[in-house]
Amino acid sequence: MDPRIEEHARILVEWSTEVKAGDMVVINATPDAHELVVALYRAIAKAGGRVVTLMNSEEALRAFYDGASEETLQVVPEHLKAITETCDVFIALRSPVNTKALANVEPKRIMIDNKTQQEIQSIRLGKRWSLTVHPCQTLAQQANMSLEEYRDFVYGAILIDWAEESKMLYVMKEHLESHKDIRYIGPETDLFASTEGRIWIASDGKHNMPSGEVFTAPVDDSVEGKIYFDIPFLQQGKVIEGVRLSFEKGEVVDFSAEKEEATLKSIIETDEGSRRLGEIAIGTNRGIKQYTLNMLFDEKIGDTIHCALGRAYKDCNGVNESAVHVDMIKSMHKGEIYAGEELIYSKGRYFYES
Amino acid sequence: MDPRIEEHARILVEWSTEVKAGDMVVINATPDAHELVVALYRAIAKAGGRVVTLMNSEEALRAFYDGASEETLQVVPEHLKAITETCDVFIALRSPVNTKALANVEPKRIMIDNKTQQEIQSIRLGKRWSLTVHPCQTLAQQANMSLEEYRDFVYGAILIDWAEESKMLYVMKEHLESHKDIRYIGPETDLFASTEGRIWIASDGKHNMPSGEVFTAPVDDSVEGKIYFDIPFLQQGKVIEGVRLSFEKGEVVDFSAEKEEATLKSIIETDEGSRRLGEIAIGTNRGIKQYTLNMLFDEKIGDTIHCALGRAYKDCNGVNESAVHVDMIKSMHKGEIYAGEELIYSKGRYFYES
Repeated sequence: MDPRIEEHARILVEWSTEVKAGDMVVINATPDAHELVVALYRAIAKAGGRVVTLMNSEEALRAFYDGASEETLQVVPEHLKAITETCDVFIALRSPVNTKALANVEPKRIMIDNKTQQEIQSIRLGKRWSLTVHPCQTLAQQANMSLEEYRDFVYGAILIDWAEESKMLYVMKEHLESHKDIRYIGPETDLFASTEGRIWIASDGKHNMPSGEVFTAPVDDSVEGKIYFDIPFLQQGKVIEGVRLSFEKGEVVDFSAEKEEATLKSIIETDEGSRRLGEIAIGTNRGIKQYTLNMLFDEKIGDTIHCALGRAYKDCNGVNESAVHVDMIKSMHKGEIYAGEELIYSKGRYFYES
Repeated sequence: MDPRIEEHARILVEWSTEVKAGDMVVINATPDAHELVVALYRAIAKAGGRVVTLMNSEEALRAFYDGASEETLQVVPEHLKAITETCDVFIALRSPVNTKALANVEPKRIMIDNKTQQEIQSIRLGKRWSLTVHPCQTLAQQANMSLEEYRDFVYGAILIDWAEESKMLYVMKEHLESHKDIRYIGPETDLFASTEGRIWIASDGKHNMPSGEVFTAPVDDSVEGKIYFDIPFLQQGKVIEGVRLSFEKGEVVDFSAEKEEATLKSIIETDEGSRRLGEIAIGTNRGIKQYTLNMLFDEKIGDTIHCALGRAYKDCNGVNESAVHVDMIKSMHKGEIYAGEELIYSKGRYFYES
């Protein structure tokens, strides 16, 4: 076995979810993630946990949606609820065979099922949980890489010193919370947002793996100015590129995209909340050196910032509500970030790197 | 998808486990059984059930045994217990990647774990449950066939008219229960057993799939005579062939094997109960035309009988106890079966076939 798979498992068990003796662990995995499942079983056993794996298959889910009546989709899966309630740790491994398997399912059917499973999802989020990927051909292809290259990319992002990364992220979090606002400056960009009363969250590998960002929700009416997102991103099966947004009193007043502007328009016009920012953030993971159209990785790229239109996270004290949460990323190599009057990032260096 | 997979799924859902609206279904599957999982999701959805799949991997289990302390092996997996308790139906799909993955695990470790999971196993057996295989290269190779041939073999055994088979099996069961003993006669064979007070079980596809046998436990001291088992079988990784057993007052008094006699000896000498028969049975599935060293299939072959040394099933009113239960099979094309004084099988015909 590639020793990096064992190391990935070790990080998930020891750092991300801190499995200890007697813990009940549930893994949720696609069949293609089997190697990482094997490595996790060894690591969990060593930590003294007991483990059960749920097989996650888009093809099977598609077949279920094909066959189920709306009534069936409203039946709560009590067995899934029971295993979720009784577990201490939940580890999800994404290694899709075909990311488009659900593309032609009537969206209403997925919505009904999601609503039915909402309670189970929130039970899950109350556990120690982690979400990661296992490198596979499907994700490599989506990233425009061979599988070998993609493996190097994934492990470059994940096999880092998380204790060290965490220390820096908490320095950043405390620094940002000691100020009342943030400002992104760069090419075609000057965006201001108040963060007064908000909590900045240091994402240090306890949930998302990879992690490496600090994020919060801006005060609703405070966002002013304009921003240019130069990193492409995937939404509704489309790659949107070169997004420009202008804000007044927290709302988008002008927008454009170099590619797929119609998709951007439909996102912004989803509902009231989709015209506002639900998240502002700084990516810090220098192990991620390029975008791969996978938001789990792209929003963490070092020397970037990102903002999301739509839903805010409650644990930031965010209030904006929306059916969408769409992240957009900007590289900051030529930019600056201010917290209050203080320059905290400039041309490739965070303040703590001096 | 091979339409036979859809048909296999339909039989499991409609006939074997009778899934109905609101049922909570748990599938236990190896990653290689994925196609059958997909077909089952569609069939279960149509029946109105909710389904969750547990991934069963010998490799992962092996890694768990490698890493776990004896203390960890004694911790009851409460999450597995919870999902087992809350399900209505349990469907196990065997499609191993490597049947030898656990070959070098210390047997004591497996024993401890089995004991820890005993309660969960008995909860499972209280549900509607079914056990089947999905054709894969590993099983095809074990059966000395190409995968294409093996698929034909498996579906030949499974895709039969189970309602019709069931009707015949219940005729057989009632007939056998109206008599007090059974006698197998054939080349080098004349074996008598009392079945007074015993229940004959018609295995008609409600649990094992394929099925096609009636079986019971003989009255302990009643077995007399000799028998020659001409069909090879797999035990402890060895293929045992040409077993001859002689019984007096229920106990083996003489034995030999044309191949692997030492393994046969170790089985017989396991404990007190392993010298006695725990099962006597008649195989009736004419869809199974050859042995494949897989007992799930071999003991069901039409025109055969089988006996097992060791543990008896309680639901037959059997009492013999043992750590082993080893089935051995005899073809009856040249033989006869008597129930009491009545000839119920002779040279290729059961009494109801006239």
